[in-house]
Amino acid sequence: MPKIDLESIEQTNNTGYPPPFNAPVAGRWQRKVAEAGGLTELGARHVVLEPGAWSSQRHWHEGEDELLVMISGRAVLVEDAGETELVAGDIAAWPKGVRNGHNLINRSDEPCSFVCVSAGSEEGGAYSDIDMMWTRDGRFTRRDGTPYGDALSAKPR
Amino acid sequence: MPKIDLESIEQTNNTGYPPPFNAPVAGRWQRKVAEAGGLTELGARHVVLEPGAWSSQRHWHEGEDELLVMISGRAVLVEDAGETELVAGDIAAWPKGVRNGHNLINRSDEPCSFVCVSAGSEEGGAYSDIDMMWTRDGRFTRRDGTPYGDALSAKPR
Repeated sequence: MPKIDLESIEQTNNTGYPPPFNAPVAGRWQRKVAEAGGLTELGARHVVLEPGAWSSQRHWHEGEDELLVMISGRAVLVEDAGETELVAGDIAAWPKGVRNGHNLINRSDEPCSFVCVSAGSEEGGAYSDIDMMWTRDGRFTRRDGTPYGDALSAKPR
Repeated sequence: MPKIDLESIEQTNNTGYPPPFNAPVAGRWQRKVAEAGGLTELGARHVVLEPGAWSSQRHWHEGEDELLVMISGRAVLVEDAGETELVAGDIAAWPKGVRNGHNLINRSDEPCSFVCVSAGSEEGGAYSDIDMMWTRDGRFTRRDGTPYGDALSAKPR
């Protein structure tokens, strides 16, 4: 069935971020849409952010394009140049290799939801505001290359 | 600016479909979102369907995944197995190579809008209900390989 049955997909707030970077995403609830739909060329996640939650640490991807469609509620998109409010129906796009980190923060009193899709090749990336990056093979490290923890998964970002 | 300014993107109802297959998509108004956002790994279009309009002839892709997010209004998703209503916030996914043709038809009295994204490789595809396919190099032909018209562009589908 091409229509995705969201309720049937496990919703998780798992993160591989090492402390203390995991705290802001504790209220981020994700569903793996691409896997549920049998997609292999596209990545896709459905995300609900509780009030106060972040979509991720502010980051950019070396080899993957990302595109987001807001479904409900409102969130603030944070980038190098400042902040932009996103509401239902808004679309944002981030080309691979552009080192302008982005994340969404729900500063409202209600949950918000969006779909985030991606495509390209896993070439790692970095976080704009903290001393962390991730490698092509999915490990979190500091900028000097020393690893965080026990090779924690760097997915989702 | 990662937020897409939809109003600044040209909206067109162009189609390369040969007559009479072009008639049902005359009320399909598309904006090229991926190009506006600088994306190269992901394809993305914002589409408005007037009442009665189709998103495309019913089709499938050999080498590209597709994913759709409904933004506003309602439409009917048509597939081999029948019809499914999609409303704002619904998501549908079509894996590459699955020969179950799909399109959306706006049977309501109001416009509807959605975003459609794609990724993968151009390997052609076919239309389920008419004697037409498209080739890897973007030409519309009949199933026996004879071309339609003067090598009309097969994009958008």
